[in-house]
Amino acid sequence: VTVAVVGGGQLGLMLGLAGARLGLRFRFLDPAADAPAARAGELLVGAYDDAELLRRLCDGADAVTFEFENLPAGAAPPQLLPPAGALAVAQDRLHEKELFRRLGIGTAPYAAVDTRAELDDAVAEIGLPAVLKTRRFGYDGKGQAVLRAAAAVDAAWDELGGVPLLLEGLVPFERELSVLAVRGRDGATAFWPLTENVHRAGILRQSVAPAAPELQGEAEELAAAVLAELEYVGVLAVELFQRDGRLLANELAPRVHNSGHWTIDGAATSQFENHLRAILGLPLGSTAAVAPSAMVNLVGEVPPLRRLLEVEGARVHVYGKAPRPGRKVGHVTLVEPDAERLRRLLELAGEPTAGAATIVA
Amino acid sequence: VTVAVVGGGQLGLMLGLAGARLGLRFRFLDPAADAPAARAGELLVGAYDDAELLRRLCDGADAVTFEFENLPAGAAPPQLLPPAGALAVAQDRLHEKELFRRLGIGTAPYAAVDTRAELDDAVAEIGLPAVLKTRRFGYDGKGQAVLRAAAAVDAAWDELGGVPLLLEGLVPFERELSVLAVRGRDGATAFWPLTENVHRAGILRQSVAPAAPELQGEAEELAAAVLAELEYVGVLAVELFQRDGRLLANELAPRVHNSGHWTIDGAATSQFENHLRAILGLPLGSTAAVAPSAMVNLVGEVPPLRRLLEVEGARVHVYGKAPRPGRKVGHVTLVEPDAERLRRLLELAGEPTAGAATIVA
Repeated sequence: VTVAVVGGGQLGLMLGLAGARLGLRFRFLDPAADAPAARAGELLVGAYDDAELLRRLCDGADAVTFEFENLPAGAAPPQLLPPAGALAVAQDRLHEKELFRRLGIGTAPYAAVDTRAELDDAVAEIGLPAVLKTRRFGYDGKGQAVLRAAAAVDAAWDELGGVPLLLEGLVPFERELSVLAVRGRDGATAFWPLTENVHRAGILRQSVAPAAPELQGEAEELAAAVLAELEYVGVLAVELFQRDGRLLANELAPRVHNSGHWTIDGAATSQFENHLRAILGLPLGSTAAVAPSAMVNLVGEVPPLRRLLEVEGARVHVYGKAPRPGRKVGHVTLVEPDAERLRRLLELAGEPTAGAATIVA
Repeated sequence: VTVAVVGGGQLGLMLGLAGARLGLRFRFLDPAADAPAARAGELLVGAYDDAELLRRLCDGADAVTFEFENLPAGAAPPQLLPPAGALAVAQDRLHEKELFRRLGIGTAPYAAVDTRAELDDAVAEIGLPAVLKTRRFGYDGKGQAVLRAAAAVDAAWDELGGVPLLLEGLVPFERELSVLAVRGRDGATAFWPLTENVHRAGILRQSVAPAAPELQGEAEELAAAVLAELEYVGVLAVELFQRDGRLLANELAPRVHNSGHWTIDGAATSQFENHLRAILGLPLGSTAAVAPSAMVNLVGEVPPLRRLLEVEGARVHVYGKAPRPGRKVGHVTLVEPDAERLRRLLELAGEPTAGAATIVA
């Protein structure tokens, strides 16, 4: 059984490692010859929209999926799962928001902005603070500008104007959460426990799960609505804000997601294995947490392996990527974390440790 | 960081998958071009004693280990861990037994047999039933003949005579156990909980852990003596018999071991990860069981993946080997097994299900 994957980053690597256990074989397509997933299968090196490479990628594959969200939707192979329609929605922040609105799922206030005049109108309507975002091709905080005062509008327009934009109200929220969901080819669904996430400079730094059990039902309901609407197959992540004890949807990721990495070590079935089960039409595995888990991203560079492994119970994942500021190069999960071990881990990861204990407690 | 491994079977594959998580790279040497470990690293195809290939295997490696026990000891690279001395002892059943005796560890009665006359003497001394075994190159019940009556001696000699042999008394035992131990470069040791094993036709079929907690101390003591005596580095398995509530040592495996496969899913740190940590001089991880686990080997052929995954909580491992009678082609671990799910799994694996429930209960 062979799985073809568009993209060969760490998500591809972790899909490949989860699938290798099951005896699956993998073929990846990535522009980088040193893509991390090369360690878990055959790597085709080239552009995501190279028709000949895509044909070779899919040739004889039992399932075709992607781990890189910015795959040009027009280049999507016909057998792609999750379906190209879901990818197209997730690639456009406006379509994403409109999907949420159509399904009755709350969001921050937003407005489409194509011209400077529309930006002024949107600022007047939504108020400040707000975030101006490119509708397409944003990730890890790139393609965004926060507007805190009217004086910042010019600079933001200079930086981002000229492509389709979205202005979103910056809503005060209690915390960031995400729900990871999976839907099989037969329509069966399953949901992992809610995950609480901490971002810094637009990059996910920490996740803790299970979180907010009182909101689990609401989260599953909104995720189920999205899965059904998109006739989805595979793992879907919905990033959420908790505000006044309710959930607002922020954005979709139509793929395995960084906030689900704790499931490798902390859940009965990982997001990676269930994604593969879903796209191959196999029965889904239990999404139950086996214990509370805390995940810390390694950003920029990997601390010495010895130091990480000295933290008792640390489940270390290193992606084999060259160090670069702001780049996700690994993560560490603590199952049944305590404040002291989490503090040591955050310190090694170069993260502020204040507040970490309150997340776990 | 690169690890060189002599052998590319499923043990190599599982070492590679455990190490891939940590960002390690692997190079394997195996005579088979379709060796399972090829999915987890670079594969050099050739004989285990090909000096030029061994040189290439070890070139630039940070650690050199083996997963194939019958590596010719004379061909062992100097940097090999576990050390070549441990390998040499484990390759000869007589030396193994003598090591146990020297350390005061109980064994079944045994005698070396090189000639037909010595066989008669040994039978007279030890009595029947007994097992005649080749001293070298046995595995999975191969190179063995059970002598239940004097009439069987001729046939056994005809089958096995001509190479150095060992006659062992067939002691009645309550059950088979194994202890998995690991020793770091710095001499630190750790022991997983005792595992109870069921063999059929000389092949391991089922393991359950933790088992026999009342014997854990005795098991750790004897394993620690072996580790120290051999100046061992890496994972060591000692197969044991429980007889009259005490432990008898049966044999050593100077490597990761089938009876430790449950540790991938059921222990804080797997035997594979701790073996890598040990040989790389990294701190050892906790060997605690996270929950009771039952492991069932898939022998001969892999049942349909769908059927295996339908068993709730089944952690399925498929090695990607061609089917062949008596060949280990995969295994499935149930964490927190119950009798019904274990019964279904044994049925899928083609194993007798009678008695399974009593093992878990």
